Amino acid sequence: ASRRGVAATLFAALAKASVNIRAIAQGCSEYNITVLIDGSDATKALRAVHGRFYLDALPLGIGLVGRGLIGSALLQQLEAQRETLLETHRLDVRVLGVASSSKMLVDPRGLDLKNWQAAFEADAQPLDLQAFGLLLAGSGVPNMVVVDCTASDEPPAMYAEWMRQGLHVVTPNKRLNSGPLPRHEYIRARARESYIHYLYEATVGAGLPVVATLQHLVASGDRVRRIEGIFSGTLSFLFNSFAPQQEPFSAVVAQARANGFTEPDPRDDLGGQDVARKVVILARECGIDLELSDVDLVSLVPEPLRDASAVSPEEFMRRLPEFDSGMAELAAQAEAQGECLRFVGVVDVEQGKGSVELRRYPRQHAFAQLSGSDNIIAFHTARYDQQPLIVRGPGAGAEVTAGGVFSDLLRLAAYVGAPS
Amino acid sequence: ASRRGVAATLFAALAKASVNIRAIAQGCSEYNITVLIDGSDATKALRAVHGRFYLDALPLGIGLVGRGLIGSALLQQLEAQRETLLETHRLDVRVLGVASSSKMLVDPRGLDLKNWQAAFEADAQPLDLQAFGLLLAGSGVPNMVVVDCTASDEPPAMYAEWMRQGLHVVTPNKRLNSGPLPRHEYIRARARESYIHYLYEATVGAGLPVVATLQHLVASGDRVRRIEGIFSGTLSFLFNSFAPQQEPFSAVVAQARANGFTEPDPRDDLGGQDVARKVVILARECGIDLELSDVDLVSLVPEPLRDASAVSPEEFMRRLPEFDSGMAELAAQAEAQGECLRFVGVVDVEQGKGSVELRRYPRQHAFAQLSGSDNIIAFHTARYDQQPLIVRGPGAGAEVTAGGVFSDLLRLAAYVGAPS
Repeated sequence: ASRRGVAATLFAALAKASVNIRAIAQGCSEYNITVLIDGSDATKALRAVHGRFYLDALPLGIGLVGRGLIGSALLQQLEAQRETLLETHRLDVRVLGVASSSKMLVDPRGLDLKNWQAAFEADAQPLDLQAFGLLLAGSGVPNMVVVDCTASDEPPAMYAEWMRQGLHVVTPNKRLNSGPLPRHEYIRARARESYIHYLYEATVGAGLPVVATLQHLVASGDRVRRIEGIFSGTLSFLFNSFAPQQEPFSAVVAQARANGFTEPDPRDDLGGQDVARKVVILARECGIDLELSDVDLVSLVPEPLRDASAVSPEEFMRRLPEFDSGMAELAAQAEAQGECLRFVGVVDVEQGKGSVELRRYPRQHAFAQLSGSDNIIAFHTARYDQQPLIVRGPGAGAEVTAGGVFSDLLRLAAYVGAPS
Repeated sequence: ASRRGVAATLFAALAKASVNIRAIAQGCSEYNITVLIDGSDATKALRAVHGRFYLDALPLGIGLVGRGLIGSALLQQLEAQRETLLETHRLDVRVLGVASSSKMLVDPRGLDLKNWQAAFEADAQPLDLQAFGLLLAGSGVPNMVVVDCTASDEPPAMYAEWMRQGLHVVTPNKRLNSGPLPRHEYIRARARESYIHYLYEATVGAGLPVVATLQHLVASGDRVRRIEGIFSGTLSFLFNSFAPQQEPFSAVVAQARANGFTEPDPRDDLGGQDVARKVVILARECGIDLELSDVDLVSLVPEPLRDASAVSPEEFMRRLPEFDSGMAELAAQAEAQGECLRFVGVVDVEQGKGSVELRRYPRQHAFAQLSGSDNIIAFHTARYDQQPLIVRGPGAGAEVTAGGVFSDLLRLAAYVGAPS
């Protein structure tokens, strides 16, 4: 009876699991507490209370949307780490549902990650993203999160609805945070006003610590002045490899395409749209209300070759050499000054602007010294004034992107009550 | 009556504030809930419940130990950011206590950060770290954290006691995590088994995202193979500046000392002990049970000059030139191979070893391209295999260290229930 916090612990567990309490009775003997809840909440309530008192693991249920490369890598990572999370972190991570672009499968007991594909082929239903959320929310697992591993616009349109259903959202999908401001602002407001979390570290730099680093700088009162970065692995590779005396730019693009380092249509890389989205995402974290169309974007696709409906990818590649002289001239000018070309995204916080452009950097600059397809992001702030805070490394690929999503899931687990 | 989660919300608020509940009554009408608590908990309970229902800010109370450069910078940052945290993050951060090495002042209503020094001079009591914790724990503020901004051994000896008192601990002090393993392991176990948090991002690289990045890699199942870094701003500066054809190593040290870039006794930098502590901290995050004495440490202080009781700092500086030829030879050998010298800490996870040593790096290596007094840390892992994940930037100084502590406070706030 003198142990502090028993009732508090009980009700905290029920509260975090969103269990509605109809009636409570506790006598002054303090030997028992009676709680009346809805029958539909019984499983969830029991699990939540057991989880808290009997030192069971904290349950975290996942519904995955998108079973492409990133989604598949995430499922493999979750499966490989499942026992360790259970033993070391007391975290019971289960995948309760998977959705493809046309079908979905939800099992409230959790899917067997070793054989989920077979079950998916056999039992998946036609896709209905709203029903997907309702099935997850009704699963009885106290903490549920939808992980959107698509690059499409449909799942983001459901985030608000899912959050209303009590589901957290974690995603590497850039569409919401670089899409129309009102929709993004609505989700941000919901996350601020409720205890439902929306996390998106992997939208910039994949698994590199970019978004969380920026958020901590901003929230701790540092004044971010400028963020400058090479945000595209493909464009990093192209300019790290480009040596104008040795071969023209179009040859570097052709080789990269042959090696699978570019999108099937390299204009999807060279156009800079993906970099512009990342600029928008980071700008908004700095409090700048930027739309994608506000970004000052200098495309690397020659103007006559931009219309994808008129110029096929093959024709684009065939005709790209016609435009090599322009790039060669820029490179020669840079080299004459001991500089080199890099395709960068810039958030100019003081001017409230974002841009994507080809810029020149002196040879001893950190951006000039990059190799491979590394991303690099430099934060210039009041505290990081003389020298910026820099994060560098592979910023694309299924493994590291899934790793970034995984780190958001761990963050979420800590927010909903896992030990740190 | 049909609104979900009212009782749950109430009890969650009381639970997070560690309020003991003696008796509860709620009728089936669901119009009211009666909760009986101890009179001593009344203020805390009222604040916690108000905070949750009336959308007051989440209270976070701070007791600061150490009013040196870092502690003072933190107080300034907290004061400057106070209104923003309240308005934007709904976080009510108050400093309730400050302790110096001999005195302490606690005010449960919160100190006025504009004038706390005067109050401290007038009203501070003799220091008693246990009483400091008890006063904070009894303050009535639901979430309390002790921030240890000292570099000394006494506060870490109290962490366990403070955590038993229900206080979280945040620190840039390396002593616990690089001190005797049993004591460190005890604190880690307490943090894992309770809902009390222990956070220490700023122990390595100050405000750079190093510890959290490593923790996320490990927890998400990446296999860390090797961590290599330049962890000392002073030693970074010395070797970034050292050009053996132009001036001897001792002259670089003398200049750095004259500019205040070294400790008063430069042997405290050149000995590598501080780097070894960081190696131990990171090794333990990788699951290696390393003691400080296990680190393979190659000191840069010539053997005959190591005994500080026999050789004063001035005599050390006078005699250092006698040993320049050895360093010049190493530098010449490196240069002959197109390489340069860097003083690095290494965690070899696969061998379970830590070392601190002077190593050679090719000119195009990221470590060779460093400038100023930047730190740089490279994580080589299964996912970051071809190219490491790299964090770089200023890794010392009061402002950025306080910023790292501040980011831990924000993390803590999210763990105890602030919106993300």
